[in-house]
This record gives sequence, structure tokens and C-alpha cells, in this order.
Amino acid sequence: METLKVIKIGGQIINDPKKLSSFLENFATLKGPKILVHGGGKLATSLAKQMNITVTMKEGRRVTDAKTLDIITMAYAGKINKNIVATLQANYCNAIGFSGADGNTIVSKKRPVKEIDYGFVGDIKKVHTETLNLLIHLNIVPVFCAITHDTQGQLLNTNADTIASELAIAFSDNFQVELYYCFEKSGVLKSIQDETSVIKTITTKDYKTYIDQGIITDGMIPKLDNCFYAIKNKVRQIYIGMPDMIFDTTIPHTSIQK
Amino acid sequence: METLKVIKIGGQIINDPKKLSSFLENFATLKGPKILVHGGGKLATSLAKQMNITVTMKEGRRVTDAKTLDIITMAYAGKINKNIVATLQANYCNAIGFSGADGNTIVSKKRPVKEIDYGFVGDIKKVHTETLNLLIHLNIVPVFCAITHDTQGQLLNTNADTIASELAIAFSDNFQVELYYCFEKSGVLKSIQDETSVIKTITTKDYKTYIDQGIITDGMIPKLDNCFYAIKNKVRQIYIGMPDMIFDTTIPHTSIQK
Repeated sequence: METLKVIKIGGQIINDPKKLSSFLENFATLKGPKILVHGGGKLATSLAKQMNITVTMKEGRRVTDAKTLDIITMAYAGKINKNIVATLQANYCNAIGFSGADGNTIVSKKRPVKEIDYGFVGDIKKVHTETLNLLIHLNIVPVFCAITHDTQGQLLNTNADTIASELAIAFSDNFQVELYYCFEKSGVLKSIQDETSVIKTITTKDYKTYIDQGIITDGMIPKLDNCFYAIKNKVRQIYIGMPDMIFDTTIPHTSIQK
Repeated sequence: METLKVIKIGGQIINDPKKLSSFLENFATLKGPKILVHGGGKLATSLAKQMNITVTMKEGRRVTDAKTLDIITMAYAGKINKNIVATLQANYCNAIGFSGADGNTIVSKKRPVKEIDYGFVGDIKKVHTETLNLLIHLNIVPVFCAITHDTQGQLLNTNADTIASELAIAFSDNFQVELYYCFEKSGVLKSIQDETSVIKTITTKDYKTYIDQGIITDGMIPKLDNCFYAIKNKVRQIYIGMPDMIFDTTIPHTSIQK
């Protein structure tokens, strides 16, 4: 089977125009089928401030009311997505921007209201790969922002890490999928202050131990949950680290193993 | 040759959620290949106000500085485009949103600075139909916002009427193209106050006469220039009027003839 790279870039890269354009230049040179997934960075928050819209956080997560959804749609699917696509085109990479509504590619369901009402947040139900497959085989590169839809006309805010893992899983029937989570650290660190403390490999068993020992905490847990879910669902390789690890495998990073 | 409908909807429909959703419901039922092109409506202006960004007009046209381009990209390619796509999906119409950067579909060149510097405004140089053609043959409906790119990484603000006519012309090699300009009037009116004064047919010769007589003026001129340019370049049928004319040909409208 052919290899497909699914690469997710996080907020810190999006926030830094120089880092972003350097990343996209390298990304454009990557041979073979590839999909890019991007987060939103600080743009949504700064837009909300400029427009005097209150950002409500509940248990560390942004609550997506109707106004916030509008801002996210403008920032993620508009400004960020289109500028990434235009930059890739300038680097001879034929990209097309997608939300999950485009081509009905990612269907999600509004998260049920339990203790917390997160608003217009969607949990992914189904990834449709047919149209994307066809485009990929034409050397077109889908670029996904973190927005999905419920097929009833409602856009929904969806975690970009989850979009990347669900795309990776969905394509694993047709490709050997390599999933890359790129962020500002060199991988999962044993000590958060020490960039040299990268854990080279984490297995499911290790993961439990690290959590029990309090070495892996907070924000890394949902990210790693996505990784282990993906590795159990036929995704071949999963890497976490700085973007450079994609282009130079000697650069320290974390590899996820069953 | 198969018929392709290129339909442009203007700001007044975009500004009215009820009108827009009723239009999209009807649009979804239209059989055969189709492309939708949408304007931006008042959203960009109201966003600029909310964000305290000054809108500069020169000779009745918005000057697109970098901040305005960001707003336009957020409003047109983000909020408006993605909500149209999601609504079409809810009506079982498999839409994909496009700017001209996506798939390198519409290439433009920044308007040269002469007496007036319009800023990041692009004049269309080339429409690439290959990818769109393929999608159209899969019953996918491209939905274009009024943004193009220069292939060097720069997004550019481009008139939506022109995008519609250039798409119509580009597809005329492969399709019998019908081009519809939908707006808030029943067509080109002899008297702007009188909705019953619709001119049923305008030929190139009539057009000159109407301009000379001061019957066709102002904003209608660039719109009609687009129409006559398109009809001279193999577009088969061109109609101007309210959206309902598409679904019911007995509804008054203006038809453009060579």
C-alpha cells in the first residue's frame, strides 16, 4: 500500500508567520500523498477581543456559542485556511482548503449537554474519504481546518487533533498512514522544562505508567488518547514533535507504539 | 453538449438569512451541473466597523488594504462560504467551497496602481477548469467566494460578477453555459423605481443606445459589461433578475443577446 502522511500543525506555528511559511515551504516538497490539518492559534481569541465578544472557558475549554462559532469559522476556515492554501500554491503544491462540510467529508454530532454545555462543539461520527481519495490521487493536497458539520446545516467546532486522527484512521483502509502531530515541543517530555527529556517511544503500557506516575498530565492526555486510539485503529506510524522531525528523522521526537 | 448553470447571488440575498436559505433549498433541487458564486453582502462592512477598521471608498469602490483583505477573507471565504456549503449539504447538494487559490482555480493579477490604488484587488488572468470539471462530473457543486490569488501567495479581492462571467466563459469549451445574475431587482429596469419596467432582452446594439439615453447607468454598467463580454465569448444564455427566475422562466427577467 502507498504511504499517506497526515500532518497536524498547532497554534504556535500558525501564530508565527515566519515559522509557518518555512514549514509550508518544506511541507510542499514532501513527496507522495499528504493531508494537512491546522489548528486555529490565537487569532480566534484576539478577534473575539476586538469584537468585544466574551470568551467563556469551562474546565479549560472554550465554550462555543453562536458568536464564537462565527469567529472560529471566519478565523479558521477563512483567514488561516485560505492563506495556507495560497502559500502552498506559491510553493507549487496544489492545495484545496476543506472544512468537514465541504464535500461532506467530516460529519459530527453536537456534543450532548451533560454537566457542561460546550455549545457548538462536534464529536466526529464519520469521515467520507471518496472525494478526498480522488483528489489525493490527482496530487491535490487537502488542507483541513478544525470545523465539521452535522449534515443538518450546522457547522461545529471540532478539535484539530481529533480531526487529524480520524482522517488518519479513515484512510488506513487504503493507505499506510503516517500521522504527525507537530507542536512547539520536541515530543512528549519527561520533564516539561527540559527539552532534552524527550520520551523516544511510548507504548500503551508505558502510557498508563507515565500517567500513574504523574509524568504525563493535563493537555498531553487528550493528545495521546487520540494517538493511542489511532494506533489501535490501523494507523501505521504516529510521531509527536517539532515540525522539523518530518523532514529529518534524526531530530528528537516521540514515536507512539501499540 | 451538456448544460452547466453558473449562478451568481448578490449581497441582498446573503444579508437576508430567510431569503438565502429559501434560495439554497431551490438551488439544491436544480438538476445537472452547476456552480454557485456569491458576493459578500454587508458582513465585511459591519465586521470592519466592529473592529474599528476604516473603510476607504474611492470612486464608489472599497479600497482593499491588508486589514480589509483579512476581513473579506474571513467574511467571504469563512462565515458566508462555509454556511452556504453546510446549508447545501443539509439539502442533499454535495457542495465544496472554493476561493480562487483552492485548486489554483482562479489566478488574478493585482490591479496596477494608476490614479487610484485599490490595494489588494485582483483582475482575473486565468481560470483552470480541470479539477472543477472532474468534481462537477461527480455531482459535486463548487461554491465560489469572491477571492482569487496571484500564485505567489497573495490572496486578492475580486468582483463576484466577474468571477461568475470568467467561470462561465472558461467552461464554455466543455458545456453549454447558462449564466444567471441574481439580485434584488426583476432585471434591468427602464425606470429604476418601476419594477414592471423590466427590459426583456438587451442586445449589444440596444445596450449602447440605453447608455446614450441615460437609461442604463451607474452600477448596472460594470454588470452588463461582464454580460456582454461573456456572451461574446461563447456563453450561451445570460439572465439577470431575481433568483426565482431560475426556477420559473415565466417570472420577469432580462435576457442578454449578442
